[in-house]
Amino acid sequence: MTITPPALSVFETLESEVRSYCRGWPAVFDRAQGARLTDEDGHSYLDFFAGAGSLNYGHNNPVLKRALIDYIERDGITHGLDMATTAKRAFLETFQNVVLRPRDLPYKVMFPGPTGTNAVESALKLARKVKGRESVVSFTNAFHGMSLGSLAVTGNAFKRAGAGIPLVHGTPMPFDNYFDGQVPDFLWFERLLEDQGSGLNHPAAVIVETVQGEGGINVARAEWLRALQDLCHRQDMLLIVDDIQMGCGRTGGFFSFEEAGITPDIVTLSKSISGYGLPMSLCLFKPELDVWEPGEHNGTFRGNNPAFVTAAAALDAYWSDGQMEKQTLARGEQVEQTMLAICGEHETARFRGRGLVWGLEFEDPARASAVCARAFQLGLLLETSGPQSEVVKLLPPLTITPEELDEGLRTLARAVRETA
Amino acid sequence: MTITPPALSVFETLESEVRSYCRGWPAVFDRAQGARLTDEDGHSYLDFFAGAGSLNYGHNNPVLKRALIDYIERDGITHGLDMATTAKRAFLETFQNVVLRPRDLPYKVMFPGPTGTNAVESALKLARKVKGRESVVSFTNAFHGMSLGSLAVTGNAFKRAGAGIPLVHGTPMPFDNYFDGQVPDFLWFERLLEDQGSGLNHPAAVIVETVQGEGGINVARAEWLRALQDLCHRQDMLLIVDDIQMGCGRTGGFFSFEEAGITPDIVTLSKSISGYGLPMSLCLFKPELDVWEPGEHNGTFRGNNPAFVTAAAALDAYWSDGQMEKQTLARGEQVEQTMLAICGEHETARFRGRGLVWGLEFEDPARASAVCARAFQLGLLLETSGPQSEVVKLLPPLTITPEELDEGLRTLARAVRETA
Amino acid sequence: MTITPPALSVFETLESEVRSYCRGWPAVFDRAQGARLTDEDGHSYLDFFAGAGSLNYGHNNPVLKRALIDYIERDGITHGLDMATTAKRAFLETFQNVVLRPRDLPYKVMFPGPTGTNAVESALKLARKVKGRESVVSFTNAFHGMSLGSLAVTGNAFKRAGAGIPLVHGTPMPFDNYFDGQVPDFLWFERLLEDQGSGLNHPAAVIVETVQGEGGINVARAEWLRALQDLCHRQDMLLIVDDIQMGCGRTGGFFSFEEAGITPDIVTLSKSISGYGLPMSLCLFKPELDVWEPGEHNGTFRGNNPAFVTAAAALDAYWSDGQMEKQTLARGEQVEQTMLAICGEHETARFRGRGLVWGLEFEDPARASAVCARAFQLGLLLETSGPQSEVVKLLPPLTITPEELDEGLRTLARAVRETA
Amino acid sequence: MTITPPALSVFETLESEVRSYCRGWPAVFDRAQGARLTDEDGHSYLDFFAGAGSLNYGHNNPVLKRALIDYIERDGITHGLDMATTAKRAFLETFQNVVLRPRDLPYKVMFPGPTGTNAVESALKLARKVKGRESVVSFTNAFHGMSLGSLAVTGNAFKRAGAGIPLVHGTPMPFDNYFDGQVPDFLWFERLLEDQGSGLNHPAAVIVETVQGEGGINVARAEWLRALQDLCHRQDMLLIVDDIQMGCGRTGGFFSFEEAGITPDIVTLSKSISGYGLPMSLCLFKPELDVWEPGEHNGTFRGNNPAFVTAAAALDAYWSDGQMEKQTLARGEQVEQTMLAICGEHETARFRGRGLVWGLEFEDPARASAVCARAFQLGLLLETSGPQSEVVKLLPPLTITPEELDEGLRTLARAVRETA
Repeated sequence: MTITPPALSVFETLESEVRSYCRGWPAVFDRAQGARLTDEDGHSYLDFFAGAGSLNYGHNNPVLKRALIDYIERDGITHGLDMATTAKRAFLETFQNVVLRPRDLPYKVMFPGPTGTNAVESALKLARKVKGRESVVSFTNAFHGMSLGSLAVTGNAFKRAGAGIPLVHGTPMPFDNYFDGQVPDFLWFERLLEDQGSGLNHPAAVIVETVQGEGGINVARAEWLRALQDLCHRQDMLLIVDDIQMGCGRTGGFFSFEEAGITPDIVTLSKSISGYGLPMSLCLFKPELDVWEPGEHNGTFRGNNPAFVTAAAALDAYWSDGQMEKQTLARGEQVEQTMLAICGEHETARFRGRGLVWGLEFEDPARASAVCARAFQLGLLLETSGPQSEVVKLLPPLTITPEELDEGLRTLARAVRETA
Repeated sequence: MTITPPALSVFETLESEVRSYCRGWPAVFDRAQGARLTDEDGHSYLDFFAGAGSLNYGHNNPVLKRALIDYIERDGITHGLDMATTAKRAFLETFQNVVLRPRDLPYKVMFPGPTGTNAVESALKLARKVKGRESVVSFTNAFHGMSLGSLAVTGNAFKRAGAGIPLVHGTPMPFDNYFDGQVPDFLWFERLLEDQGSGLNHPAAVIVETVQGEGGINVARAEWLRALQDLCHRQDMLLIVDDIQMGCGRTGGFFSFEEAGITPDIVTLSKSISGYGLPMSLCLFKPELDVWEPGEHNGTFRGNNPAFVTAAAALDAYWSDGQMEKQTLARGEQVEQTMLAICGEHETARFRGRGLVWGLEFEDPARASAVCARAFQLGLLLETSGPQSEVVKLLPPLTITPEELDEGLRTLARAVRETA
Repeated sequence: MTITPPALSVFETLESEVRSYCRGWPAVFDRAQGARLTDEDGHSYLDFFAGAGSLNYGHNNPVLKRALIDYIERDGITHGLDMATTAKRAFLETFQNVVLRPRDLPYKVMFPGPTGTNAVESALKLARKVKGRESVVSFTNAFHGMSLGSLAVTGNAFKRAGAGIPLVHGTPMPFDNYFDGQVPDFLWFERLLEDQGSGLNHPAAVIVETVQGEGGINVARAEWLRALQDLCHRQDMLLIVDDIQMGCGRTGGFFSFEEAGITPDIVTLSKSISGYGLPMSLCLFKPELDVWEPGEHNGTFRGNNPAFVTAAAALDAYWSDGQMEKQTLARGEQVEQTMLAICGEHETARFRGRGLVWGLEFEDPARASAVCARAFQLGLLLETSGPQSEVVKLLPPLTITPEELDEGLRTLARAVRETA
Repeated sequence: MTITPPALSVFETLESEVRSYCRGWPAVFDRAQGARLTDEDGHSYLDFFAGAGSLNYGHNNPVLKRALIDYIERDGITHGLDMATTAKRAFLETFQNVVLRPRDLPYKVMFPGPTGTNAVESALKLARKVKGRESVVSFTNAFHGMSLGSLAVTGNAFKRAGAGIPLVHGTPMPFDNYFDGQVPDFLWFERLLEDQGSGLNHPAAVIVETVQGEGGINVARAEWLRALQDLCHRQDMLLIVDDIQMGCGRTGGFFSFEEAGITPDIVTLSKSISGYGLPMSLCLFKPELDVWEPGEHNGTFRGNNPAFVTAAAALDAYWSDGQMEKQTLARGEQVEQTMLAICGEHETARFRGRGLVWGLEFEDPARASAVCARAFQLGLLLETSGPQSEVVKLLPPLTITPEELDEGLRTLARAVRETA
């Protein structure tokens, strides 16, 4: 397949220089279905990117699409702030019945605004209010969002510098395996907490991703997460799991922390929660933490009701039984086989992952970008992650068929070979 | 009409205490069309609230609805980050042709994430980057959003306290008429800027609403805005107009600052930009300020393509000629007549407004809440604003008919009488 | 008198560029007595500067000198931290008997380290601890010190910029007469405090100088200070008077706030408290504010016992009766006469002052520096102050004789004439 | 010897609760000579505390005393700000000839105000100005002072909490041997610096004590200091050695870092620099860092000329040859022998030290306080240090005789035995 780079005129002349994805993927996309996008010239692309994790059920999933169109057709409430609506009630009941009760999770549900960073900002506010302390610990290579509160607990130096003010009130600690097993887990963190002379401002909370997506597909072990929860309990800190990218089934279970058997104090969800790529996010927390005053945090689009409709439909369709989790783990094994093969062939590559999130790291960071560029030419959408963009990140829709997955993996293997 | 308060069970048991609107309006809303909402019991409500300014063209506006359903039906891209799409191109071209060119505005367009606070955060980042300074001046009773960057330039003490950290890098200055004309405009601000011993950290930018919505419908005069622009130019500060609530025609012209004849350096838009209540926001700025690196600010839902579709449709339908502006000003005069009459009858009430945003202030703040509560019983949705919730805020859809407007105004007058 | 500029070799080659006074007064001083200094070439200089207010009793005052030498001779404790010593006890008893009791002031006494900025830092810490809030209000053109806590409440932009970090947690308000009487006192400050939407972080305390020395000899009226105290009481803020430069008799009474009849919650003293130019400072506060834990604030040189000895001797010698206050006011009148004459002759000059602190302001800031430079050539030490160094500052020792004062004033008048 | 606790009346009634040393040593001290203090009841105390390191040459050292009295007698300048004086010139020349030149150190000399924290504040300002970054790295259990800039790089949680504002812009790293050799030096620090996703704000500088006095007599190895210097060079950070307590010969050489063969970019000195316990401090830096503007940092008592006189006399008397260093090392060996013996007898004790600074740590922190309390009863002044006051700190004057040292060590050993 050859692709003629389109004239991106209005994007180049009118849109800000801040745009980024359109630079790596010089096509004008027009339609999408399931795991495939089509550009305006009719070229088709297999999607191993899934809206950065926002399209776990594929593009324009027919089940959700039906529910969405029906809702719009019947003039359901579109914009509802935090008014009670029938769509919101349906979502809340479904979320309770399908997600919370079966997992014995006692969470209260907050709609903090429809983006991930809204959810993180609300989680940090709540933790600080409950504990009466300012400091929050995050981890090396964490990504939590671009508004100032979230950015202060994000690792990336380039994004942090964009703040234009010194980002404070956050302190980084080493993520799992940051020293390749050389150093006992939490040695540094725990010493600082116990030593009254350490200079660490005692944190209100710890915020963590179970798998760091933007940070390079760094997978925390279950025992590390359990030890972190223990440390939080012993040291009177709240544990916040940011499950924005890894929740909604990406790693297998609905929440990525289920496998570790932990119960975070606060959980943030966004990206695939609406299931259809519509903006929506949630902040969940233990009931005893629900010390909010009415309206103490708010946001104009926190009641994006069409998203509640697709969200409820997605939960009903995919999470009423254990089928989705089983399928994701099976697809993950399919990926792992290819990864083993690629790394067998290419000594400078390493891989890691869980469920349907995988990373292929190259010693030479430029190689990862080259692989993604070649994959695009071959009709496969792949992006890089990691502090030096040294990791090729695989994030296909969970609903991808084994055949599509195989096709994409073969394209990936070819792109790796052809960039050697 | 009598309304049976519904059992709000799942909202009360599962949703966080942070919810607010549903407390003042104890109904479960189900459908909406134009200026009317209907609850699940079939009661109808006239809407003088318009999604806090997000529904300027009414609920489920049929023109936009058609465009939206067509787009979904044909599997258009739903979630696009900042990839180039046909829907995005159509929006950009329409925005350029219908909004920017006719007004001779040279702005670059940024999609900073789909909520107002995302747009404000990006505006502040950009201003700080361009000027290399941290401090930003805002105004008394300003409201710019709930994430930490925006909250630092917001006035409300209750919302600020929710941050859990000291909010710094922002300094408030008196909004227009803060001292009822007793003090020359900008006397304090200008002195501080000129005096090398004043202790004011020289600001990168000034952020202002032309009409403060949440702050109590405080209307800045055109000459005050012009003087502010002059001051910014003389003192090397960028002028940011936050037009999230007052833009998209709320005050008459598309931008609320048009009447004053100023050209802000940076403009934020959100709320009614999608036209359909779908999450979307823009940050506009002069081309010479476009110093962003690719990806320096981003956000998962910055490419909410269904919103681009309704946004383009709304611009086409309502802004291709001067009709909408004329109509809004006419409707505004209709409101003003009622306001005059109400304030003639009630000595403790004062009013102010522009276009189709009006505030009715009561000496006793409890009265404003009582008026809104009574209005709800009478089938009219109205909310309060101002630091003590002392102002009844009128924000009907711009597309409201003269008859509906009249009906609502009569209900308002009755609610005022009945709470005397 | 002609003065040969000496070769300042080691100062120029070894000492940092940060040095400043030695640039304006290019002499190497060797000895000093009373109101006169002598340089190594034998030139004599009349001192209208008094160690920036640290030498209210003149250089090497014989009464204090005797006490100091006796103490050193008998091997009294030199360095005592906060150990109990006989010299410290003598000082505390004298301070209580001569200063606090006669004025009915209930203060506890803290030795916070021997410099003014140590005292200010401790005052701010205490206020924040007592009130549990971070923010402190200071005034335009305030000067409180150069360590980060004090610098954050200091106005001078050049000195603030030296911090290298954004200075926050402080907000400036207009000092008395900042708008030449155009605006009612505290209009802005009080509105911000009362308006829940103002954006002002509610302050723990207000810190003020009764006469701003570095800020340009700005004299607060007694009624303004009383109104400030009232405002602090009404708004639950502590009132801190920084009396480092204006205390110890500079304005007449021992404390500069006595005339206004106010009782600040916290008072800082330094500069002339030791009487001999030796480093010493105090922080005084109402007993109910004494919530310090032992050692919560400390400093190596907080027990500079030789300074306690001269301090006690100075209090005994000069403050056992009302003589000193009367004399200072008389000398002040002598200055005022000359000021009137000078300003009569020179239309571009204005003056202000109290007790023995006076400022002569010139429309053209360069003129003030020129006057000081010419005065130096004529054997008179004078420095400038104010945000643009536009004010010639008169700060002679309180013990200056009428003849010396007259001599200096004549020299000043000549320097003004000769720089016209 | 039995000691009657004196009535501390005025200290208890008038002095603030913040006082601390006088609580542990309930005596009223009156005179002192060499290594001995005498209280007003005539009891004598051997001094293993030396003004917290400010009296390295003993109390009222006769050589310095003579110079000081002569200077006062002849009416030398007492208070000089940064005017050029003959006393300042003499000090600068002596410092250059005796200290800087023989060690081939190129430093410029700044007088930042007479206390240690003034010096640290100036060092941090300069580093931030030079590098244009806000963040500074300090070490676990560091102590650098009590004003806000210095406190932000200090470890002690109790002292930090006293600030009343969140202390930011500083990040702690593990001091040498923080993990008992389990972890390679700088593993964590270096990884954070190299990883663009670590979340560490790149530091302007690193501030370190070669031996942490307040932190518990933690001795950095020479190779650790050299590796730290290397890291600073590689990562474009300035190296600041805070030599306030360990400089002026405490560890043997004049500067404590000489042994490691490093040349810090910035050095702070205070405590024993005047030699007589008089307030004085210096900030030294490489000439290329001297980017100060005149007066950009200042302080009223930065020209404490009597201190310059004793400082010059001390340098002349003790540092013109290598005698002092040799003697200190010999005395240190004497201490070490006793330490070995004590720790041989008491299994729960450990010791560490260099030159004439030693720490004796007990497993049970209460034991250290008990030892100091018993020592006081036996006529020996000793204080504790460390985050839990678990270390008995030995800091005798460098001029102590072998006999006095032996006497004190025997008393210490007895106090340890009697508290077992």
